[in-house]
Amino acid sequence: MRTTPAAPDNAVRTYIEAQRSAFLSDLCDWLRIPSVSADPGHAEDVHRSARWLADTLRETGFPVAEIWETAGAPAVFAEWPSGDPDAPTVLVYGHHDVQPATLADGWHTDPFEPVERDGRLHARGAADDKGQVFFHTLGVRAHLAATGRTAPAVNLKLLIEGEEESGSPHFPALLAQRASRLGCDAVIVSDTGMWAPDTPTVCTGMRGLTDCQIDLYGPDQDIHSGSFGGAVPNPATEAARLAAALHDDDRRVTLPGFYDGIVELTDEERALFAELPFDEADWLHTAHSHATLGESGHTTLERLWARPTAEINGISGGYQGPGGKTIVPAKAQLKLSFRLVAGQDAEKIQHSLRDWVAERLPAGIRHEITFWGATRPCLTPLGHPALRSLTRAMGRAFGQPVRYTREGGSGPAADLQDVLDVPVLFLGISVPSDGWHAPNEKVELDLLLKGVETSAYLWDDLAAHWHPRTA
Amino acid sequence: MRTTPAAPDNAVRTYIEAQRSAFLSDLCDWLRIPSVSADPGHAEDVHRSARWLADTLRETGFPVAEIWETAGAPAVFAEWPSGDPDAPTVLVYGHHDVQPATLADGWHTDPFEPVERDGRLHARGAADDKGQVFFHTLGVRAHLAATGRTAPAVNLKLLIEGEEESGSPHFPALLAQRASRLGCDAVIVSDTGMWAPDTPTVCTGMRGLTDCQIDLYGPDQDIHSGSFGGAVPNPATEAARLAAALHDDDRRVTLPGFYDGIVELTDEERALFAELPFDEADWLHTAHSHATLGESGHTTLERLWARPTAEINGISGGYQGPGGKTIVPAKAQLKLSFRLVAGQDAEKIQHSLRDWVAERLPAGIRHEITFWGATRPCLTPLGHPALRSLTRAMGRAFGQPVRYTREGGSGPAADLQDVLDVPVLFLGISVPSDGWHAPNEKVELDLLLKGVETSAYLWDDLAAHWHPRTA
Repeated sequence: MRTTPAAPDNAVRTYIEAQRSAFLSDLCDWLRIPSVSADPGHAEDVHRSARWLADTLRETGFPVAEIWETAGAPAVFAEWPSGDPDAPTVLVYGHHDVQPATLADGWHTDPFEPVERDGRLHARGAADDKGQVFFHTLGVRAHLAATGRTAPAVNLKLLIEGEEESGSPHFPALLAQRASRLGCDAVIVSDTGMWAPDTPTVCTGMRGLTDCQIDLYGPDQDIHSGSFGGAVPNPATEAARLAAALHDDDRRVTLPGFYDGIVELTDEERALFAELPFDEADWLHTAHSHATLGESGHTTLERLWARPTAEINGISGGYQGPGGKTIVPAKAQLKLSFRLVAGQDAEKIQHSLRDWVAERLPAGIRHEITFWGATRPCLTPLGHPALRSLTRAMGRAFGQPVRYTREGGSGPAADLQDVLDVPVLFLGISVPSDGWHAPNEKVELDLLLKGVETSAYLWDDLAAHWHPRTA
Repeated sequence: MRTTPAAPDNAVRTYIEAQRSAFLSDLCDWLRIPSVSADPGHAEDVHRSARWLADTLRETGFPVAEIWETAGAPAVFAEWPSGDPDAPTVLVYGHHDVQPATLADGWHTDPFEPVERDGRLHARGAADDKGQVFFHTLGVRAHLAATGRTAPAVNLKLLIEGEEESGSPHFPALLAQRASRLGCDAVIVSDTGMWAPDTPTVCTGMRGLTDCQIDLYGPDQDIHSGSFGGAVPNPATEAARLAAALHDDDRRVTLPGFYDGIVELTDEERALFAELPFDEADWLHTAHSHATLGESGHTTLERLWARPTAEINGISGGYQGPGGKTIVPAKAQLKLSFRLVAGQDAEKIQHSLRDWVAERLPAGIRHEITFWGATRPCLTPLGHPALRSLTRAMGRAFGQPVRYTREGGSGPAADLQDVLDVPVLFLGISVPSDGWHAPNEKVELDLLLKGVETSAYLWDDLAAHWHPRTA
């Protein structure tokens, strides 16, 4: 058992302050690349984003930085060995693809031209997830500068994928294919958030996700609602009936078997949730919403973190222009996503949905279901030494006690856990008001730099307190 | 009581054949004007269409042809007195505006560049309703040429409105304002169809219509379905729940009071419907549909002609691009139309819908309802002498017995009946396969010319057999 010199706080902060401007300038360069994985028209941008990141990681000092092609969008892998054979090996996970964004969605400025306003950096991907990937580049350099090391105290690996916003369809295959390069003692997922700017927290779980598109076809073309209406099935009506039937009046999901086997919250977890300063009015403000609504019998935090959902992400069919058009539309479409919690199996739910849809549609309506992928839910083992190191590093950066949350969003954390057979931890500095997937997404610059600082302290603390390969 | 010389069939046919080419060329000029009343971007085109028609009616010989402005789109009024003070006065009603149409809807050729193929003329408005208005221009000239008259045998008036496809919002006001010019003994509506090319029919009723748009607002912007989903109301879900709840499992409309007071079919009317050669497979082919579906306990013809409906003409909300986007959308929209039958009152139904929507939406969802207008249902008195004249004129043109139908579509016929206090008759030669409101709308040229011929015979027959102003 050995220890490494701890990076002194002042040295870390001084280094970060000196590098701040160049760091933000580089991040803005990356944010200008519209790496939208869901849109085939942006495929080359996703490749460009991967090349940009690999080049930058090499400039940061990583001896290895490679682009890993997949059947979809490319991932970036980088590696920086510690030189100490007993040091733990940590794999940082994030993603370089982003959600779609256009000015027409309500952005005040071009989503792919970063703008700094009032201590915030606005751009698609500023928080989800380029900012939170990028803080590790300055973090590791601050760690080295403050400790005088030439290599990190841990064996550091980065895996930054390119399809997270599309449900990571090729990520499990990539992990299986590259497992020998990805061997590690823990995964640090940098793709989550914390409670609030003044309440640093570590996330201990993420919901899973499976999402799909259901296309419904009725008449072969739009037909006159006077001449034919009331006597033939209408695919827009059937889309609405499917969407509506997904929830009962208690807003519980009606899919057969949907809740079977889910891991219910323990009393300890409920108590940890209850410690958080939750204010419904504040939360609604952050959610840009005007009331809460969800599964009966659960609090808002329980609904967000520990309960599965079915959500209509998009619905369309028929005339959408100005005024009216008295037609029975030829087709309609639903885009659905299901958030999953531990104990649920995405494949079973997909199967249940297929059966449920087929049984409910009347004769004369043809349908197709396309699943975009599945991401498993994930829970971190409480009390793991690496989780304690992470909590300490974050506490040093923020100068405050760190509490625990979960994350309602989804990431491929469970795949990493399953394929690599290691614990998964979450380090995120984004806050709910950052507007992930929404117009005017931003990151708080102060918090982004706290992320840099946490990253700078973490590698020391892990190497000093965690010895996964000694008995 | 006096009689007028009947137009000999051969003379009428010879005249029509000689004029056919010029008639179709003129019609094509009119069809090239995209007079889409629902789209404010086409307002000038609707005006241009009105000017074109007024000019053409003057060239046809109408001594009076005026453009009547309204608070919306302009109507065209024309008048050609008989010269005989005892002649009946007939007002022909039609419309010069058309449904929206773009190539992207599935048209094989530009909807506003008419194309003749296989005896059909394809263009938006070819059947609904420019073709059916325009056949009267050649009809009246054939009537004059064949009888040697210099003025029609009846006092002929035309009122061709410009907002029928938008629900005729200003038509009742126009009728009230111009009532003194519109005085007549009967209205002939030229905006319906007949059973089939080989089964000429006269329509004896039309359904009414009221349609609207419901806008639903949830979060102030699209929000992340992982961070917030399951805990706030989703306007797309609520739009779907409204749309779905409009019908029960028997596909009866659930709006409170919707069926109150409707005029049920008589046994005689059921028997007249049953005489028609209805073949479900053929009808489905015409409907471009793959099964029938509608209110339990009624046949397809009853559902179309004598039962009211609620139809989803459009639904939209959230992401509609390629792939998925895991959001809770900020807003959603429904476009609904209700077909009404005799005994229903559009205002009561609008009121019922407003209450029903307001009661069903959860806190956190704001809504607006915009009604586009209301058109009352209409029934022609069976056994009226003018209906017998119309039936005879059509029988001469087609050389076949003429049967009776109703029309599932809607027109402002009931307003004419109410304001002018006269019977309303329907003369239409369009067939169900003409594709009203659909891509590739067409009119059968043979039937269009039968319409010309019917019009040429009708004025003689009315003048000879109907004397509304003698005791």
